[in-house]
Amino acid sequence: MIVVMKPGAPQAQLDQVIDHIEQLGLRSHVIVGTEITVVAALGEKRDGAKQALETLDGVDKVVPILAPYKMASTEVKKEPTCVEVLGLKVGAGHLGIIAGPCSVESREQILEIAHLVKGAGAAGLRGGAFKPRTSPYSFQGMKEKGLELLADARHATGLAIVTEVMAKEQVELVANYADVLQVGARNMQNYPLLEAVGESSLPVLLKRGPSATMDEFLLAAEYILKTGNTRVMLCERGIRTFEDHTRFTLALASVPYLHQKTHLPVVVDPSHGTGKANLVVPMARAAVAAGADGLIVEMHPNPDKALSDGFQALTPAAFRQMMSECRRIAAAVGLEI
Amino acid sequence: MIVVMKPGAPQAQLDQVIDHIEQLGLRSHVIVGTEITVVAALGEKRDGAKQALETLDGVDKVVPILAPYKMASTEVKKEPTCVEVLGLKVGAGHLGIIAGPCSVESREQILEIAHLVKGAGAAGLRGGAFKPRTSPYSFQGMKEKGLELLADARHATGLAIVTEVMAKEQVELVANYADVLQVGARNMQNYPLLEAVGESSLPVLLKRGPSATMDEFLLAAEYILKTGNTRVMLCERGIRTFEDHTRFTLALASVPYLHQKTHLPVVVDPSHGTGKANLVVPMARAAVAAGADGLIVEMHPNPDKALSDGFQALTPAAFRQMMSECRRIAAAVGLEI
Amino acid sequence: MIVVMKPGAPQAQLDQVIDHIEQLGLRSHVIVGTEITVVAALGEKRDGAKQALETLDGVDKVVPILAPYKMASTEVKKEPTCVEVLGLKVGAGHLGIIAGPCSVESREQILEIAHLVKGAGAAGLRGGAFKPRTSPYSFQGMKEKGLELLADARHATGLAIVTEVMAKEQVELVANYADVLQVGARNMQNYPLLEAVGESSLPVLLKRGPSATMDEFLLAAEYILKTGNTRVMLCERGIRTFEDHTRFTLALASVPYLHQKTHLPVVVDPSHGTGKANLVVPMARAAVAAGADGLIVEMHPNPDKALSDGFQALTPAAFRQMMSECRRIAAAVGLEI
Amino acid sequence: MIVVMKPGAPQAQLDQVIDHIEQLGLRSHVIVGTEITVVAALGEKRDGAKQALETLDGVDKVVPILAPYKMASTEVKKEPTCVEVLGLKVGAGHLGIIAGPCSVESREQILEIAHLVKGAGAAGLRGGAFKPRTSPYSFQGMKEKGLELLADARHATGLAIVTEVMAKEQVELVANYADVLQVGARNMQNYPLLEAVGESSLPVLLKRGPSATMDEFLLAAEYILKTGNTRVMLCERGIRTFEDHTRFTLALASVPYLHQKTHLPVVVDPSHGTGKANLVVPMARAAVAAGADGLIVEMHPNPDKALSDGFQALTPAAFRQMMSECRRIAAAVGLEI
Repeated sequence: MIVVMKPGAPQAQLDQVIDHIEQLGLRSHVIVGTEITVVAALGEKRDGAKQALETLDGVDKVVPILAPYKMASTEVKKEPTCVEVLGLKVGAGHLGIIAGPCSVESREQILEIAHLVKGAGAAGLRGGAFKPRTSPYSFQGMKEKGLELLADARHATGLAIVTEVMAKEQVELVANYADVLQVGARNMQNYPLLEAVGESSLPVLLKRGPSATMDEFLLAAEYILKTGNTRVMLCERGIRTFEDHTRFTLALASVPYLHQKTHLPVVVDPSHGTGKANLVVPMARAAVAAGADGLIVEMHPNPDKALSDGFQALTPAAFRQMMSECRRIAAAVGLEI
Repeated sequence: MIVVMKPGAPQAQLDQVIDHIEQLGLRSHVIVGTEITVVAALGEKRDGAKQALETLDGVDKVVPILAPYKMASTEVKKEPTCVEVLGLKVGAGHLGIIAGPCSVESREQILEIAHLVKGAGAAGLRGGAFKPRTSPYSFQGMKEKGLELLADARHATGLAIVTEVMAKEQVELVANYADVLQVGARNMQNYPLLEAVGESSLPVLLKRGPSATMDEFLLAAEYILKTGNTRVMLCERGIRTFEDHTRFTLALASVPYLHQKTHLPVVVDPSHGTGKANLVVPMARAAVAAGADGLIVEMHPNPDKALSDGFQALTPAAFRQMMSECRRIAAAVGLEI
Repeated sequence: MIVVMKPGAPQAQLDQVIDHIEQLGLRSHVIVGTEITVVAALGEKRDGAKQALETLDGVDKVVPILAPYKMASTEVKKEPTCVEVLGLKVGAGHLGIIAGPCSVESREQILEIAHLVKGAGAAGLRGGAFKPRTSPYSFQGMKEKGLELLADARHATGLAIVTEVMAKEQVELVANYADVLQVGARNMQNYPLLEAVGESSLPVLLKRGPSATMDEFLLAAEYILKTGNTRVMLCERGIRTFEDHTRFTLALASVPYLHQKTHLPVVVDPSHGTGKANLVVPMARAAVAAGADGLIVEMHPNPDKALSDGFQALTPAAFRQMMSECRRIAAAVGLEI
Repeated sequence: MIVVMKPGAPQAQLDQVIDHIEQLGLRSHVIVGTEITVVAALGEKRDGAKQALETLDGVDKVVPILAPYKMASTEVKKEPTCVEVLGLKVGAGHLGIIAGPCSVESREQILEIAHLVKGAGAAGLRGGAFKPRTSPYSFQGMKEKGLELLADARHATGLAIVTEVMAKEQVELVANYADVLQVGARNMQNYPLLEAVGESSLPVLLKRGPSATMDEFLLAAEYILKTGNTRVMLCERGIRTFEDHTRFTLALASVPYLHQKTHLPVVVDPSHGTGKANLVVPMARAAVAAGADGLIVEMHPNPDKALSDGFQALTPAAFRQMMSECRRIAAAVGLEI
């Protein structure tokens, strides 16, 4: 890292910085500029503890040089990772499509949707059994009963089941039924949960927190990777900004950026990313054009009767239109659905 | 709630909206304006499920009228709540000061700090034993050993212990040692955790998530209140914005706003809220002037040797200065430390 | 608009609200709900003055119902507007591509680039002669000499010239040379400038301010439209958020959103929208897939020698790749370049 | 500045970076770390042009070291600047209070308010004659007639007149009547305007743009200072964030931050900063406690009849309360009103 001294910092303060760097087991290297002196600290580790240097007298700022994550990085693994489970392939040239309702509501509902999803050519079925809801007064999901219905839907269609796990103590139960464990945006930095899903044998879909930077997102993935579970899919689902015409701002530049920094595949969720059904199809197309490795979208045969988030669910007809348009875009950019 | 129709929406669409409202068990009331027709739905509950109305043809938008929280609201309890534990009083005219290190690091460290905190006139001791850290490579806290040391510090000084609990399964353990359970900003919407701290008998300090709106913050409190635990302190600790000269943007207008909407006391954390030791004292003063019911600040005898977040910790001298200045401000606004 | 009363507001306060509404020349309509009373004010105009209702005792909030803009709205003109100048067509199924350097630097530079732009199949040439720069110490453009060189480039290639005008008093001069007047993001709410470009006879490319909402953006367009100039192109160029891996966050959902609300065409600027050359091509593809009516990108034969913003300029090879990929995407979504 | 190479960048790329640095007239200094090599470029100027280095092959990022502004900096002038005009003193221990209506509406209105402002002990009178309004359909101010009324109010009370100038071509006219030229938030980066107010002989109140960083804010001030006009007051008036319970987020940590970086005084505008009359007084107190050098607030004898922004105007009684509370806070922090 680089320690930037304040203009006119006396030699004694510089010496203290050098001492401190060496106490951290690093080598120091002083560079005297025309207006300002900086000290490079060589041998930097990735533990963040050295920000203590910022508290020393005479220090203006400390600039880290290394990316803080390692196992997620393309520095460690250059070739892109493909996560594959049942017929769902995500990454390394494969575009995986996951669709389904916000919440599992009944056997009829989930089976009807599963057949629609399968029929349109997608390979993954989403559906919440444990639902994190902003209000304690909202529908919280069917819990284990919902998981059973999802497993029935897999049995009927062969679709891979993607469903959320909200807490460490639910991991074992959910892993009994699901094919992919989803960590929701609210839990992106729930570290006990990240470690627990890491220790399961299932692939993980990790959603970006609505105020997470790319470094924070990749460090959350690093918590999972560090346990030995390498099948992690990142999911961009929109960030919180001042915009009020959409539920979140779907920041698609994260797709090509992540492709430069990490080998992990990147899935996009245009349903939460916009919060409006009539914006989902164009943003799904845009995500594919930006190079996304997968899409996860909400679809419901009767959006106005959905128990949660119906306002952002596609109708079956709109979903089929999305599939058809995304296929054309995928062909144009050389991806395979 | 108010359903706003699109200009020129035909009668059939209006009828469908009215039907839908009545199926929800509400009464409808149509108002025909010069350019636009709106339908008021009377008898609204607070469960959010009716956003499904937004998906109906011809509907432009749906405007909720009721605040989504109830037990946290001044509509339910007008007089301000004072949370009191040992000598720490927060709310209803009492300004409670909580200080201490980011992490408990050793017996010597925590006892030295506890005596400094007590000596300067504060009533609560903060210190992390379980530390949520952005990077898996950073120091994660002393865990149960840290809790034991905090309990020793209480024994030595009488200070109330405020410490973070990161997961449902830790609540019982942490509650054995702590006086106040802190829910961190990353966990503001960790609902299993909120319910678990609600079920403990201890007061809770709930930190605002860095991208949480006021409604989301109060709904998180509502999760705790709904379990029957009414001793909840809200903590403003800064939001994530485009500003890059501070770690977060400390949004102090939330203090008077929350005082209008809720009876719960509001604590401010200027350490995380700025992330720079040299901004903490002026922002502590500003928080008190804005009417805060408490402060929680990081203090360390040797910030440059702290194992975490030293860059934002006050020295003991700066902490004493803060106490003295905040006392004067508190007197000016009629609060009692 | 809808006036929401506070719970328990007494009749006298309600009466005062009704009086006030009628003084504004509106009709009032009271709706008594189970918990709350609201008053609809019928006959609302779009002048914003009635927010004064929010200051009355007993009023909780006031909810506007009408969109605040009119001439930009699809309510007024349903069919999409195509702006056409020389060979450049933007909107109504035509995808117009505008490319060129950040700044005009010399005759050789601008002619070389113009031929590259033309050769790759684009129809507009961008290039700054008057440059708004964050720092007073940065290169401020070649001014009138730059305009002359742009006109020479038009003469040599037939490309339409798109260049920025920074102040009302420059409009006449710039209009002597340019084909499209660009209003930069920093000037989106420079109302004297908006009125001045409106009064010129040229089409206008209006860039979104980095913190502008959609309503503010469309109201800025309304300032121009109100003068009688209907050839306005909106340009999404990224918003300011907490993201630090890109210069701005390119919020592409504004493209389909604007297509629902306005007849004006929407151009996307992926160069400023990302600030990194290696993200421009994927985001250009994404913009076209989202339905953009045009692209404006920075290109330079030697980005590392550019006098401004070289870090976000495409090389000629990357620009040709972008054109080829965008052509395939455009074909997939039924647009014509 | 520091050029950070990508891991494994070959020697040829490093050589190209060194060449490029030397072509810029700087000295280069290579530092080989364990994982990464960096190159320090010594002799950096402040012109921003060198970001071109980021476009070179093998370069990961470029980190500037110098602050980009100079004349605004405490490096150039350590002692705080006090701007004084008539009885208004702002900075260097003096707390200047400026109050008045959003818009000048009539002779009676502005004289009544001026006497109220004077009577409560403030020294500056604000009031808009030229009003930038988001909507072209809103009241745009009384223009020159409004300026004449402001001058009459100065004559009657001796208050210093603070009023906005929206465009370069208005500067001369406004300067004939005003004592302080206000540059509004929408115009913070209107460079022709900044230069024009710089060339007048009057002090300038420069408002922070709602998405401006501190560096951008200080560079805008630098545009004025560079013309030779050193009487610049900075004004924090809130930033645009995701928060929706206030009009803007009043980011008070900018006050102590700016005091460290610049000698210019910092005024706070809690009226625009919150947009709600009932939050203005607590935030005015907080601003003074944070060390603000001045306040500018909106006050109106009949907020519900104001032609603009009545919802954020204090009543005369609330204004007097604010003055009395701020006097106590000012005394507590050692400032003089």
